[in-house]
Amino acid sequence: MKRIYLLLVALLSLNFLSAQTVKDSVQLRNFYDLSLLDGQSYEWLDALSNEIGPRLSGSTGAEKAVQWAKEELEGIGLDKVWLQPVMVPKWERGAPEKAFIEGVDTKVDVPVCALGGSIATKPSGITAEVIEVQGLDDLAKYGEDRIKGKIVFYNRPMQADLIQTFNAYGGCVDQRYSGAKEAAKYGAVGVIVRSMNLRMDDLPHTGAMSYGDLPNEQRIPAAAISTNGAALLSKMLKKDEKTQFYLKMNCKNYEEDVPSFNVIGEITGSEKPNEFMVVGGHLDSWDLGDGSHDDGAGVVQSMEVLRLMKAANYKPKHSIRVVLFMNEENGLRGGTEYAKVAKEEGEKHVFALESDAGGFTPRGFSFDADAANFAQVQSWIPLFKPYLIHFFELGGSGADVGPLKEEGTVLAGLRPDSQRYFDHHHASNDTFDAVNKRELELGAATMTSLVYLFDTYGVKPAIPNRQPLKK
Amino acid sequence: MKRIYLLLVALLSLNFLSAQTVKDSVQLRNFYDLSLLDGQSYEWLDALSNEIGPRLSGSTGAEKAVQWAKEELEGIGLDKVWLQPVMVPKWERGAPEKAFIEGVDTKVDVPVCALGGSIATKPSGITAEVIEVQGLDDLAKYGEDRIKGKIVFYNRPMQADLIQTFNAYGGCVDQRYSGAKEAAKYGAVGVIVRSMNLRMDDLPHTGAMSYGDLPNEQRIPAAAISTNGAALLSKMLKKDEKTQFYLKMNCKNYEEDVPSFNVIGEITGSEKPNEFMVVGGHLDSWDLGDGSHDDGAGVVQSMEVLRLMKAANYKPKHSIRVVLFMNEENGLRGGTEYAKVAKEEGEKHVFALESDAGGFTPRGFSFDADAANFAQVQSWIPLFKPYLIHFFELGGSGADVGPLKEEGTVLAGLRPDSQRYFDHHHASNDTFDAVNKRELELGAATMTSLVYLFDTYGVKPAIPNRQPLKK
Repeated sequence: MKRIYLLLVALLSLNFLSAQTVKDSVQLRNFYDLSLLDGQSYEWLDALSNEIGPRLSGSTGAEKAVQWAKEELEGIGLDKVWLQPVMVPKWERGAPEKAFIEGVDTKVDVPVCALGGSIATKPSGITAEVIEVQGLDDLAKYGEDRIKGKIVFYNRPMQADLIQTFNAYGGCVDQRYSGAKEAAKYGAVGVIVRSMNLRMDDLPHTGAMSYGDLPNEQRIPAAAISTNGAALLSKMLKKDEKTQFYLKMNCKNYEEDVPSFNVIGEITGSEKPNEFMVVGGHLDSWDLGDGSHDDGAGVVQSMEVLRLMKAANYKPKHSIRVVLFMNEENGLRGGTEYAKVAKEEGEKHVFALESDAGGFTPRGFSFDADAANFAQVQSWIPLFKPYLIHFFELGGSGADVGPLKEEGTVLAGLRPDSQRYFDHHHASNDTFDAVNKRELELGAATMTSLVYLFDTYGVKPAIPNRQPLKK
Repeated sequence: MKRIYLLLVALLSLNFLSAQTVKDSVQLRNFYDLSLLDGQSYEWLDALSNEIGPRLSGSTGAEKAVQWAKEELEGIGLDKVWLQPVMVPKWERGAPEKAFIEGVDTKVDVPVCALGGSIATKPSGITAEVIEVQGLDDLAKYGEDRIKGKIVFYNRPMQADLIQTFNAYGGCVDQRYSGAKEAAKYGAVGVIVRSMNLRMDDLPHTGAMSYGDLPNEQRIPAAAISTNGAALLSKMLKKDEKTQFYLKMNCKNYEEDVPSFNVIGEITGSEKPNEFMVVGGHLDSWDLGDGSHDDGAGVVQSMEVLRLMKAANYKPKHSIRVVLFMNEENGLRGGTEYAKVAKEEGEKHVFALESDAGGFTPRGFSFDADAANFAQVQSWIPLFKPYLIHFFELGGSGADVGPLKEEGTVLAGLRPDSQRYFDHHHASNDTFDAVNKRELELGAATMTSLVYLFDTYGVKPAIPNRQPLKK
């Protein structure tokens, strides 16, 4: 056993030290050095976050961000930079929300915010008793008798024992997305959702919700409440189930979609100009913070991938595109449109990498790929070890590159450390000061390295109608 | 080749799925669950940071911390809790420092702080011209002619391209520790050291310095300047080398050592009560912040290791001790004393683990161990994978457990993500709000898991006068 092991180690080492591997090691080191010593990503994020700020689809901020990104990409000498038109929904928060809990002798203000896509309350607000539930399934359990005329309070917390916080988010977010639609069917007059936040604090976290095909007259307002607010409301309800909740929201859905753009830049490939590799993040952000982690970080890291290649004087074989998608947060129109146009134009997309999980220390990537391509990725793991990049697993990639999947594109998502992400996600503290320069830069270099490797070694031929490996 | 590989994988898989391995997996999961769902570490850190605060050796804060830790350890039902006396040096900062740069037409205040152990300036402060150097070696290059009567400004920055920031710290800290001692030999009247910080900001970072055996009358004051302050000073010196610097510091070294304590708690082993495993951090902290990362985190994580074992109803075979060391920052008296007493008492210490690198997401451990013990550690790596713990390397362990090395003890240090550590290290922003609850708790569970594994599988017999493996 031991001898077999030693032989294997020796063979692997030999292989690992091939001339090509040495060349790859040197190239990766160069990308990391350029990013850490002379990077552009942090300065870009400063501008996007502090000069432009929040940029929800259809807002002035989003327009400014499109122009800013186009100009910056033009400034780094790409072969092409252009705007791809896309129609997006428009929703506005309006004046700040107001809410309080009213018990027999007490009235306590609590921090809330409208969920994106929600209708407003009537101008004077609504007051109603509250029924606390632990999820959508509880609605049928309690039934119309107990729900009608009340505000439904979804209070299932994120599971703290899940190591990857995105899994905890996935286990809760149905309350936010579908809570109003489902509660309305039981006659609820509004919903309050515990913020998707693992921390106890006073910040409400917004995010997309949908009424599906619920007729307009049945739609009810939906708000997020801070985790501390949720704990207080739950406590007061336990004491007195007649406790009332007052909610006033001033938000508005516009009936007509409005024009916006994906921003695209390209380095045209030297050998395979008609095979495309995409790296991207989304340019839109929620309105409460400045969207530094979600997804300013992914935007500037994706821009930096192309800039680093140029700075390193690396000329890719394939055409490498940075795509800054519009409207990931409340519609995914940008990602959908990009894939649609690519299909119409017959552009062969072989690889796409998304960064949309925050600007924290990168840990690795998850892949949506077939066995041959995933095996290839695994052979690259030793190259990443000096940078403490160790996570290479099958799993999701990203929402915006997802629509490319049906064309057989190998998909990947950057996976930064996720512990603090939901402290900031969709809340007013998703701001520039919460991003560490080095962590951001390490992410950009890590992404560049993966794109470099796929560009160098190519993507294994797609099998038509292949079944992607599932984790 | 492929068949050999498959065989190997099969054999390893088989081995990995042994009953003992399954038991270990379940035990680790239990430690992580208890830490994340019902942990005590964050609440403890809140008390230590916010109720006690800074606790430099010999201060009232340090005394309070000793009493607090003893009471808390008594509260979790250990078999023994005691204080181990140790004499420590005492230094006080006194009133806040003042400094400004004076050019021909300008006078700019800059943030400075005295280095720990420095003498004060005279009460009216000192004013002198400045000579900028990039390190200790430059002193001989410039010589007494150009240095005498001036303030030496050490401005070599931390290297941003090093992935592990502790390596960048190691490459700079000689300027802080020995800068004054060496510059004094050339007739300098004071030294200013660029803060050991990878970020550009306005916070000066203190830390230990030493005059060695330099006679009292030759000693000169030493201060740290913020990174932004250092950049400004350097710029002004380039414009005008006659630029002057004013520095006033009010610090004081006490002549006599003062009494203090290590705080020790023990779960007595069920099978090998006379073989000891230590887990620890240091109770003292610098005076500018509240010492939450350095090393409040290590203190509460170490306490949590024993509490988690009790909460899991795990009865260790070996005696497990938590040791909260006094005076790591400016003397290492606690660590030295603990090892001395252990030797005098003939206590066999088989394993010691330190946490003193911040309360950030744990990435793994570094080990100071021989080949047999390191091989054993490597066989445990798969158990840690679900928790994204991947870093298991030979290297240093920790300052406080270091003195146990000569007894042949296997040593280890927790290695959290290091990117943000030096943003806070020894500065006024090393505070409770900079510690994330989950990251702290993951560290505590990771430490508990390693101690559990060493307790379960034992430590391989020490070879007398063994040479530890070096990285």
